Amino acid sequence: MHAVGIDIGGTKIAGALVAEDGTILRSDRSPTPAGSPAEIVEVVVGMITRLAEGHDVMAAGVAAAGFIDEQQSTVYYAPNISWRNEPFRDRLMAELDLDVTIDNDANAAGWAEFRFGAGRGVDDMTMLTIGTGVGGAVVAGGHLMRGGFGAGAELGHLRVVPGGLPCGCGARGCIEQYGSGRALLRMANEIADVGGIGLRLAELREQNGTLRGEDVAELIAADDPGAVQALRELGGWLGQACASLGAVLDPRLFVFGGGVAAAGELLLAPIREAYLAHLPARGYHPEPKFVTAQLVNDAGVVGAADLARLHFRSR
Amino acid sequence: MHAVGIDIGGTKIAGALVAEDGTILRSDRSPTPAGSPAEIVEVVVGMITRLAEGHDVMAAGVAAAGFIDEQQSTVYYAPNISWRNEPFRDRLMAELDLDVTIDNDANAAGWAEFRFGAGRGVDDMTMLTIGTGVGGAVVAGGHLMRGGFGAGAELGHLRVVPGGLPCGCGARGCIEQYGSGRALLRMANEIADVGGIGLRLAELREQNGTLRGEDVAELIAADDPGAVQALRELGGWLGQACASLGAVLDPRLFVFGGGVAAAGELLLAPIREAYLAHLPARGYHPEPKFVTAQLVNDAGVVGAADLARLHFRSR
Repeated sequence: MHAVGIDIGGTKIAGALVAEDGTILRSDRSPTPAGSPAEIVEVVVGMITRLAEGHDVMAAGVAAAGFIDEQQSTVYYAPNISWRNEPFRDRLMAELDLDVTIDNDANAAGWAEFRFGAGRGVDDMTMLTIGTGVGGAVVAGGHLMRGGFGAGAELGHLRVVPGGLPCGCGARGCIEQYGSGRALLRMANEIADVGGIGLRLAELREQNGTLRGEDVAELIAADDPGAVQALRELGGWLGQACASLGAVLDPRLFVFGGGVAAAGELLLAPIREAYLAHLPARGYHPEPKFVTAQLVNDAGVVGAADLARLHFRSR
Repeated sequence: MHAVGIDIGGTKIAGALVAEDGTILRSDRSPTPAGSPAEIVEVVVGMITRLAEGHDVMAAGVAAAGFIDEQQSTVYYAPNISWRNEPFRDRLMAELDLDVTIDNDANAAGWAEFRFGAGRGVDDMTMLTIGTGVGGAVVAGGHLMRGGFGAGAELGHLRVVPGGLPCGCGARGCIEQYGSGRALLRMANEIADVGGIGLRLAELREQNGTLRGEDVAELIAADDPGAVQALRELGGWLGQACASLGAVLDPRLFVFGGGVAAAGELLLAPIREAYLAHLPARGYHPEPKFVTAQLVNDAGVVGAADLARLHFRSR
């Protein structure tokens, strides 16, 4: 049975018709009318209708950043969109003749990796999505861990430094402030400030007026010592977070997604190193694997569609 | 169907015949021959045989401190007993005519609370057992979270202080060093050292030669300001750990077991306070409840028996 998956981002809405095996059969995209909940409903209803046309589609899944309730029905809060306690599923189902579920976008992406990507064949997987912030998804014993209030696996808000840097969530010292794309930029800027290995970073910053994510990525790819050092620092923090996450979740596999994960081994090596250095009961605890995500851009829509299909079947 | 539960501690082995509803029908206990794996097998086989006699028992569950593999078969490592990669299930099944499973003792106790105690009616529960160390158990979506290598929910080894106090596990800054019964004694001793509110603690310490757990418990019960302050400090750390655990696991209920939890509200109040002060996305994240365990001494045997029964039925 095909299902439709929709991924609502801060700037664009992506959609796809997805087959049982995770293959995308059709896809669509549209800008996000972020300020208007009513327009978002309109865009999503239109997209689902077009994608499903001519197929016997019974279920559509929608992924969005934010806290979704445990009924997969209401968005409590979305960081990028003007939703507060938005009964999004009901609004969609009022205009559509199929079963709709809502999931957190990081959960949907993690589920897609588990079913069709880097996590195939593993029952316990923890995924960290390293974008502007740090998203998370946890599969435990083959089940997506949604949490009791639907806000589980907010792994970016694991505290790594008591009284550390302030976080957008209101707390301090969250791994999001030490392991995200934004943190990488901060570290790269600090290295640019002191010269030495930061020379090329400083030059690019002067040239462009500011240091952009793509500049750092380019220098990492060119093996620039300053940019690589910033990435190593980032990986060190992520590895420390994984040591704590390992004590709690004990996954066989850590998967890293998001833009920063494109650095591959250059990111994974310092993560592994820091994980081992901070691992409780090292030597008695078998070692998990650390890999990068495989589905990248399509993970959100593929995961949302698959979760909707499973939900429909379990009704 | 009745099942037998066995709880192997560092000093004693407890056993019980347990009914479907968690009621204990018979019980037994024996000292732990901690130095001899062969004698432990002998004691456990004898106990299971006697407890099952005259009943149609198909399953026995054994709980022990340590890392158990994900097959619930081998003990990788036990802190109190001379087991290293011990194929404990096979040894027991070679001498018994029923299905045997092994579980971590904190997991068994948590499962008992979930099924028959403080966690009834909740699908997502996190339990911290505050004894000499800090044990953990996690129920997510109604399933016991064992982890990919069988070492999940080792919540005592969540790091709360980077480069903090050394932990028996080899890492530093684990919550076990800030939230355990042993940590409470350290804090009480520090308060005794400085006089003031520590006067009674210092007196008791001089009287007994050393400050014992029961002395601190007695002073807490008598509302002694020094002892209560030590407990408050402990609760503050536990609440900070719960803020991180909440971001990862999002339980609806935190349950506190172990000897220190007997302090009840005096422990729970500072936990709640610190949790709220460090909670990511406070105001958007519904608040979990914080309660103490109900089954106390019997949780290990009751949980082990129930897990064995479920395992037998799912074969």
